[in-house]
Amino acid sequence: MGKSYNIAVIPGDGTGPEVVDEGLKVLERAAQKHGFSFQFKHYPLGGEHYMKTGEILPENVIDELRTRDGIFLGAIGHPDVKPGVLEKGLLLQLRFELDQYINLRPVKLYEGVSTPLKDKGPADIDFVVIRENSEGLYAGAGGILKRGTPDEVAVQESINTRKGVERCIRFAFEYCRKRNQKKKVTLCGKTNVLTYAFDLWERAFYEVAKEYPDIETDYAHVDATCMWMVKNPEWFDVIVTDNMFGDIITDLGAMIQGGMGIAAGGNLNPEGVSMFEPIGGSAPRYAGKQIINPLAAISSAQLLLEALGEEKAAADVEEAVKKVLKDDLKDVAAGKMGYTTAEVGSLVADYIKTG
Amino acid sequence: MGKSYNIAVIPGDGTGPEVVDEGLKVLERAAQKHGFSFQFKHYPLGGEHYMKTGEILPENVIDELRTRDGIFLGAIGHPDVKPGVLEKGLLLQLRFELDQYINLRPVKLYEGVSTPLKDKGPADIDFVVIRENSEGLYAGAGGILKRGTPDEVAVQESINTRKGVERCIRFAFEYCRKRNQKKKVTLCGKTNVLTYAFDLWERAFYEVAKEYPDIETDYAHVDATCMWMVKNPEWFDVIVTDNMFGDIITDLGAMIQGGMGIAAGGNLNPEGVSMFEPIGGSAPRYAGKQIINPLAAISSAQLLLEALGEEKAAADVEEAVKKVLKDDLKDVAAGKMGYTTAEVGSLVADYIKTG
Ligand SMILES: CC(C)[C@H](C(=O)O)[C@@H](O)C(=O)O
Ligand SMILES: CC(C)[C@H](C(=O)O)[C@@H](O)C(=O)O
Repeated sequence: MGKSYNIAVIPGDGTGPEVVDEGLKVLERAAQKHGFSFQFKHYPLGGEHYMKTGEILPENVIDELRTRDGIFLGAIGHPDVKPGVLEKGLLLQLRFELDQYINLRPVKLYEGVSTPLKDKGPADIDFVVIRENSEGLYAGAGGILKRGTPDEVAVQESINTRKGVERCIRFAFEYCRKRNQKKKVTLCGKTNVLTYAFDLWERAFYEVAKEYPDIETDYAHVDATCMWMVKNPEWFDVIVTDNMFGDIITDLGAMIQGGMGIAAGGNLNPEGVSMFEPIGGSAPRYAGKQIINPLAAISSAQLLLEALGEEKAAADVEEAVKKVLKDDLKDVAAGKMGYTTAEVGSLVADYIKTG
Repeated sequence: MGKSYNIAVIPGDGTGPEVVDEGLKVLERAAQKHGFSFQFKHYPLGGEHYMKTGEILPENVIDELRTRDGIFLGAIGHPDVKPGVLEKGLLLQLRFELDQYINLRPVKLYEGVSTPLKDKGPADIDFVVIRENSEGLYAGAGGILKRGTPDEVAVQESINTRKGVERCIRFAFEYCRKRNQKKKVTLCGKTNVLTYAFDLWERAFYEVAKEYPDIETDYAHVDATCMWMVKNPEWFDVIVTDNMFGDIITDLGAMIQGGMGIAAGGNLNPEGVSMFEPIGGSAPRYAGKQIINPLAAISSAQLLLEALGEEKAAADVEEAVKKVLKDDLKDVAAGKMGYTTAEVGSLVADYIKTG
């Protein structure tokens, strides 16, 4: 008997449950093939649950999640809940409470997928963004003085600690070494304006870099990074950046790799419990229609397998996803795939079985 | 005799002087044709000057600049000066001291220019970003505690005032009304995470919007904005945003409109002295070679003419730029134009004369 993993599943809102189902289908199949197993426990968190119960993320649930081998999340966000409530109370709360200090975002254009960029193909778009995921502007620090008056001042603070920045940068270098491709880590920042935050980042970056003489270092301002992502994405291998800039460039990355339908992400605590999620939102207008693309969720499941150390199973999932994209789907966009959500999940699962 | 305008000229570093020369050539020609004139006074500010004299921006120069009708800037930035010194000491200092609270960035794809985006043409890429230019993360507020130790903390603060935000938003709505196109203003922010800063922004936005019932309002998170700029740029008309997000999305905008060779910008103080600059950098490796594209500087000169109220002259410049792009240039990139920098300036000037 192989290992058994306890995975917490948070289907969440909108199309979250539909894509999570397909992720689980694929995880089961991969486990079966490779001789391990999963115990899934579902948690009914999200906008619906909040509207019914007023509960967002109870303390005892967090405590339970701490004991899991991983978390698989669908999507959080409900049209009737004020923006910020669920994002901060649930998604960011989980990232922070579980100290998932890395947001890992592969930006990879698979064959058969159309990018909005001219003259760019799979060989050009293949890099990874390592986003700091536990501090910066996401600390929630700041305040408002004289709210609602003409003298109002709102302050929002980016807090960066040496420890937080350094562990993120070190992760990026380690990841780059393991990835073993262009062997280049690009720091994306704004040293010429954010002279406190990126002074720390820059010093930490070049100090950590000394431990990795085999890896080339590179720096780009965040504004320039966006330009190059569109004009010369082939320049990048691993990009490391802060929480806010990471949020921005990973969405841009999702777009150039073909859109939200296929963009996967991991919130990693390499020493603790990690959480995996497709990076698209809850897409309420598509919910329940079986037209949303589950491949982003399935690729997130692949990242979960990688984090668990089940590299072979992960590789199988990636191969199957590639095959579906190359041979089966008409388009990656919702409603244009030529298959239902469940059918796409089954295609992936079947390719895993048949290899 | 027509009006005479006193314009301060700061050629700056690298390719700055070359492109400024062409901007002035075009300004002279437009003035001649339309019966007004310019007095240009050159200021030798920038990296070279700083290295020779240690001087960045003397107080008496600022006082003189305050009395001008406008400022025309080439580029600031020198490879031998530490990043941040000139940007903060000169460029940002000018923006702040002269309270140029609007950064105006038209994102317009002209015919004959190639965009990196597939399936997008001039009809799709035509919007304007109004970037707040006097506060936010650019305030320079923050600090570092325990610098250089493992316990180091670096804080960078975004400061947003009701007055600063409101005047920027109002400018955006006024601009949108005058522009008279899709009549839509999109607020680009991050309300779900930057809950202090964008709480103020959002309230100010919807309150000001009430004064403009003829204009549609729209909101997009900054990460989504980047996605739509690449995928559906035709959705935008006027985007208003804070200083940092504006910096990022305007560079992305420059790229989709064809690159730094043609992207123009204005730093506006509608009640004071405004400053116009091509948004590309000083490109030291191209300096003195007469291969850089001066059209970004020339289009900045067009924005200067608009700000001076010389609408007809401005329209002539735009028409001439369009003609050169459509009929003459092989490519907009440095070294690939098929003409020297000066020749491109002369082409534009000649089209203005012949109409
Ligand atoms: C939903 C939102 C809070 C979140 C973020 O800003 O981190 C999302 O955009 C992401 O990138 O995961
Ligand atoms: C040079 C730099 C300080 C500047 C900025 O960040 O504003 C530039 O990127 C711009 O957009 O004008």
